Amino acid sequence: MGKVLTVDTMNANVKKVEYAVRGPIVQRAVQIEKELKEGVKKPFNEVIKANIGDAHAMGQQPITFFRQVLALCSYPELLDDNKFPEDAKNRARRILKACGGSSIGTIDCVRQDVSRYIEHRDGGIACDPDNIYLTTGASDGIVTILKLLTTGEGRTRTGVMISIPQYPLYSAALAELGAVQINYYLNEEKCWSLDIDELQRSLEAAREHCRPRVLCIINPGNPTGQVQSRQCIEDVIRFAAKEHLFLMADEVYQDNVYAEGCAFHSFKKVLFEMGPKFSSTVELASFHSTSKCYMGECGFRGGYMEVINMDPEVKAQLTKLVSVRLCPPVPGQALMALVTNPPQPGEPSYAQFIAEKTATLNNLAQKAKMTEEILNTVPGIRCNPVQGAMYSFPRITLPERAIKDAKAKGQVPDMFYCMKLLEETGICLVPGSGFGQKEGTFHFRMTILPPTDKLQTMLRKLKEFHQQFTQQYS
Amino acid sequence: MGKVLTVDTMNANVKKVEYAVRGPIVQRAVQIEKELKEGVKKPFNEVIKANIGDAHAMGQQPITFFRQVLALCSYPELLDDNKFPEDAKNRARRILKACGGSSIGTIDCVRQDVSRYIEHRDGGIACDPDNIYLTTGASDGIVTILKLLTTGEGRTRTGVMISIPQYPLYSAALAELGAVQINYYLNEEKCWSLDIDELQRSLEAAREHCRPRVLCIINPGNPTGQVQSRQCIEDVIRFAAKEHLFLMADEVYQDNVYAEGCAFHSFKKVLFEMGPKFSSTVELASFHSTSKCYMGECGFRGGYMEVINMDPEVKAQLTKLVSVRLCPPVPGQALMALVTNPPQPGEPSYAQFIAEKTATLNNLAQKAKMTEEILNTVPGIRCNPVQGAMYSFPRITLPERAIKDAKAKGQVPDMFYCMKLLEETGICLVPGSGFGQKEGTFHFRMTILPPTDKLQTMLRKLKEFHQQFTQQYS
Ligand SMILES: Cc1ncc(COP(=O)(O)O)c(C=O)c1O
Ligand SMILES: Cc1ncc(COP(=O)(O)O)c(C=O)c1O
Repeated sequence: MGKVLTVDTMNANVKKVEYAVRGPIVQRAVQIEKELKEGVKKPFNEVIKANIGDAHAMGQQPITFFRQVLALCSYPELLDDNKFPEDAKNRARRILKACGGSSIGTIDCVRQDVSRYIEHRDGGIACDPDNIYLTTGASDGIVTILKLLTTGEGRTRTGVMISIPQYPLYSAALAELGAVQINYYLNEEKCWSLDIDELQRSLEAAREHCRPRVLCIINPGNPTGQVQSRQCIEDVIRFAAKEHLFLMADEVYQDNVYAEGCAFHSFKKVLFEMGPKFSSTVELASFHSTSKCYMGECGFRGGYMEVINMDPEVKAQLTKLVSVRLCPPVPGQALMALVTNPPQPGEPSYAQFIAEKTATLNNLAQKAKMTEEILNTVPGIRCNPVQGAMYSFPRITLPERAIKDAKAKGQVPDMFYCMKLLEETGICLVPGSGFGQKEGTFHFRMTILPPTDKLQTMLRKLKEFHQQFTQQYS
Repeated sequence: MGKVLTVDTMNANVKKVEYAVRGPIVQRAVQIEKELKEGVKKPFNEVIKANIGDAHAMGQQPITFFRQVLALCSYPELLDDNKFPEDAKNRARRILKACGGSSIGTIDCVRQDVSRYIEHRDGGIACDPDNIYLTTGASDGIVTILKLLTTGEGRTRTGVMISIPQYPLYSAALAELGAVQINYYLNEEKCWSLDIDELQRSLEAAREHCRPRVLCIINPGNPTGQVQSRQCIEDVIRFAAKEHLFLMADEVYQDNVYAEGCAFHSFKKVLFEMGPKFSSTVELASFHSTSKCYMGECGFRGGYMEVINMDPEVKAQLTKLVSVRLCPPVPGQALMALVTNPPQPGEPSYAQFIAEKTATLNNLAQKAKMTEEILNTVPGIRCNPVQGAMYSFPRITLPERAIKDAKAKGQVPDMFYCMKLLEETGICLVPGSGFGQKEGTFHFRMTILPPTDKLQTMLRKLKEFHQQFTQQYS
């Protein structure tokens, strides 16, 4: 008798899940690293990973204050140690106290800290801690809300609008849940901005075969690095109201804004500035995380979501659903408390905290600019300004013969390109096809996270490679 | 226009999820605590929570060595501090090194530590690190495996056999996934043991309306506290092989064995001792966690699963699926590395580690015995020996009039009982109906976690309450 569980008898939705960020390129990169260690000769000495948005893995330093408080919470005997500043000790005492009394699993003071942070960020617009749900990274919150919204069969199945290019968590979650993915294309010619006309087109096409109920926005964008204007956000909210869509705003890069003239506007703030006609009706869930911004703490899996205008009975269902899996990791919760309640002016850690935060963000801004500039010197590569987030998503022109060779090998052309790049230079990128792109166009996603000098070397190598590649296949 | 998302238009499977452990009793307990703080007079001064298995929340002390290493990992400047023993520093250096090089998100050395731990636990039976998946608590692993196994529609829908009484994560996950829950009843008269005849009965009944594919076992048991004999495990494995079922062994309480004559036998070990006919065919996933045993670290959400005889293509699908959500929390991974690679004889922290571990487990053993003994002095309460885990699940006799009064109020009788107990004594338990029980029987689940003196007081109060309650309704 065969196995109980085979690919033919397993959950078919799981099989449909695709996840390029950790796909074959990364697997090969890990292999190459092993080969290098074993002494295999290569035309390079190390693999440079510009494939995933893990800042600390690329050498960015954690914020001292955060790590001090986490150490104090882990091992409270350190509270007697003079080495730690008083404000760090105070935060740790507060978190430890809140933990001790809690039988609910989430530390209550965190939701209060989060709601005060949001109020401050949004210029005083009220935030009710009862609208805050702590999550295991933003990923967990996004999947949970999509899960609540997925119903129906066939033509009544829930449709979810996502941008293309997209962060592949979205397509993966939709495949797993069996919801219908509705693509709307960002406008590469206008710096990856969002056109309402395109939203309308994609919505109407989708209504032929499913029931569109949700509109997802990533701002600042991954993989595209654009920052949405206030006007655009207002237009999106109007569109969602008119078309009766639930809005999901993925704002995990809210501090990662570099370009002059760009600023982060939260969907919550814009919604409330549009007046009660919108602020009392449009249903919105927005997501934040400890993984990005100046924190970069991917490993702690901290996150929250704020829900606005959610039906109270649905909120009760949501509360029940999340408690089955017990609480999000407590160190991540503690970290979120620190991110939303960092050292204040007058506290001993304030100066160092601000210095570290500013240095990290300035360094990212510099690397964003450098990336755009160097890439745009390469004939056949065209890169939009990296206005925010941590990625560039340049368009690459591939010779016809390269496209043919790729197809002969059964590879998509930008996968073929990235694989060759990896083998020849050690640079690890993700092919554009992993995020979605307009038919016939090719891209790759490159993080701006490697240290400045390494990034510069990498960009130069990439330039050389692209020129050789173009020559070879012309 | 109404809301996009209402209870009528939300995912119907989510609505079916029930989770009694954090249900109305706990909500009322939280309210009562607030009232006490506000000075409201009650016949008691504090709420005693014996409802959830969170050992640290009930005063159990964390293991010093674990917390030292976690503090060192959080804030590596402490590596220069003389206060920390060398073995703690060595563990921290190793974990930090493994983190730095990793772009995959899981720390590679953890899977190696886990596999050596399993080999040692199981008397040398080999464990391949490639069969180990790190998880966000055992919960995450259990839900993931159930997800893989859920397919089909109507009569071909996957059926999953779970014990009754059960840990409600199982029923909740099955409801959410839309899999069919198949109940098999543990034998209360034989100390909550598992009868193969009952497995057979329940399987055959289920085959009428679904396709049974999975058999879940919790050993040591929650909420029932029994420890399965080696013979019973062998019988279960034979049954799974004969009936072509995928086995899921929830072994999160593997160190929590107290009763004389009882020992923990892992399903993996018994499977391999039964010879290649079984060990090369029966598909098994077993689960462990940092939340229970002597560790009690629920907040870190550490866990692993080991899969045996899983189809390699399915393993590839599993790897893909888990990488979409990024890695399990790194502090939880680090903690799992420490649990599976604790201080060794000769290392400076060994003596203290063993002393703390032993004291914690001895204290639990003592409380397990005390709970059983005191409960069995109460007429109308009958408690099986608490052989392992952290709970007693005594049967209570309720007067006819109490059952009638409860029904008039629309409450299940043991909820009525527990709610009254809470209001009159401040003791917070979970009604047996939250875990499932034979029709017409009533129980409650009580943890053995409160500190010894508090547990004793609580048991006395409970005794008084039960006597008064019986009188009042007779
Ligand atoms: C747009 C976007 N949303 C969500 C996430 C998930 O973040 P987290 O680590 O908080 O789960 C990421 C991570 O890369 C992201 O880029
Ligand atoms: C039998 C059983 N399995 C699994 C779990 C979940 O544990 P974790 O905290 O590792 O998710 C628990 C927690 O109480 C449990 O009792």
